[in-house]
Amino acid sequence: MVSWKSLRARRARPANTRPRAASRPRVVSRVELGDFTPDLDVYLGQAAYLQLALFESLGRAAHIAPSTRTKTLTGAVATSTLERHKGLLTEIERTGADVPETMQPHRAVIDDFQSRTGGGDWYESILASYVAAGLLNDVFSRLAAGLPSDSHDRVVTALETGASDDEKAIVSELSLAISADPRLASRLALWGRRLVGDTLLVARAAISASHQSADDERLEPVFTELIAAHTRRMDSLGLTA
Amino acid sequence: MVSWKSLRARRARPANTRPRAASRPRVVSRVELGDFTPDLDVYLGQAAYLQLALFESLGRAAHIAPSTRTKTLTGAVATSTLERHKGLLTEIERTGADVPETMQPHRAVIDDFQSRTGGGDWYESILASYVAAGLLNDVFSRLAAGLPSDSHDRVVTALETGASDDEKAIVSELSLAISADPRLASRLALWGRRLVGDTLLVARAAISASHQSADDERLEPVFTELIAAHTRRMDSLGLTA
Repeated sequence: MVSWKSLRARRARPANTRPRAASRPRVVSRVELGDFTPDLDVYLGQAAYLQLALFESLGRAAHIAPSTRTKTLTGAVATSTLERHKGLLTEIERTGADVPETMQPHRAVIDDFQSRTGGGDWYESILASYVAAGLLNDVFSRLAAGLPSDSHDRVVTALETGASDDEKAIVSELSLAISADPRLASRLALWGRRLVGDTLLVARAAISASHQSADDERLEPVFTELIAAHTRRMDSLGLTA
Repeated sequence: MVSWKSLRARRARPANTRPRAASRPRVVSRVELGDFTPDLDVYLGQAAYLQLALFESLGRAAHIAPSTRTKTLTGAVATSTLERHKGLLTEIERTGADVPETMQPHRAVIDDFQSRTGGGDWYESILASYVAAGLLNDVFSRLAAGLPSDSHDRVVTALETGASDDEKAIVSELSLAISADPRLASRLALWGRRLVGDTLLVARAAISASHQSADDERLEPVFTELIAAHTRRMDSLGLTA
């Protein structure tokens, strides 16, 4: 498994001192996720179930929201999460596949992720939603480039529904709370580090399921980019990734 | 408070034996909820917060769903619940009012309802959603008749979004489970009786907030109709109301 820590460590090591075993002389070519051709059913089942799980977590976040304003925000994020889910279900239905059966194989990994990233309060829960939706929608958007062209545009449209507005709304609300409470800032920075590790495991599973022969080394640049995007998302909250 | 039990008792008593105190000789005219002119902000705040609370309960129901199929159904019901919520928020925004502030005054009654109607398992939770959404969307649709005509159509469209499909899907899934398990049938019939009492309290609060002078006696026929509709909804599950 590629973990966040090992990637950070490898990225930090200067390239010219990087050890390379003489027994592995092959050139590692840069890979884009769009170079993969994901199995459409597998791709859609994962992406749709992820949105369903995110909705479920948002329901819990709404329940523990500290104010009507934060509850309203949570409802707005859940609305677009379910709109994305619905768009992806429509694509599953187009293939003629059974919707629950198509999602079923992906439950274990995503349910496990969800159980570890619920968060202790609303701030942690909504940060989890922000980090997971940001990183994993990014992964699925990149993988979508390898889908048949008639599916590609509709899937990307579904994945992008409301995503930018959700991010802006969460950043605005969390930034206010963080700037008012330095202890919250340090707690959320720590929580963000935990979250990115767990989220990358789901990303890794999603990529592996789409392309069995995807090996860790060829994927390294992809993960480096995903982490860079995560770092930018944490930066916009004023938090160190 | 008008309770389900007192209404059932009064309805069961033959009209010609009905006692009427000599000190209260006035004729009780039949009232329609559409005769009331609800305050638009109060109406929208209640209706929108109700959908937000229903979404929250559905998030919990999704979490305890016994299968991917029932979880998928829960997601579909939550999707249209949040679509209704979003449509109502758009109406609040049109009035220029602040969305969370408009919903805030209605939290206590609805949160209390929600805490008493969570249900012990998915079957109870989804029945609660079916009973509450059915009865309360009915109340809000009737009250909408008293809204300014430019709001009326948009509000009714928002309230009706997906409602019929949700009912059909829940009835189909619950009926299967009920026919396979007589103990579930009797448990859900009991739970339905508890739910209708709690749901009518929310209905009563919604009507009272829309029309301060609404007295119990004039409203009795309205509640009788709401209960009759509830009985039909339970009938379609094969359950005695």
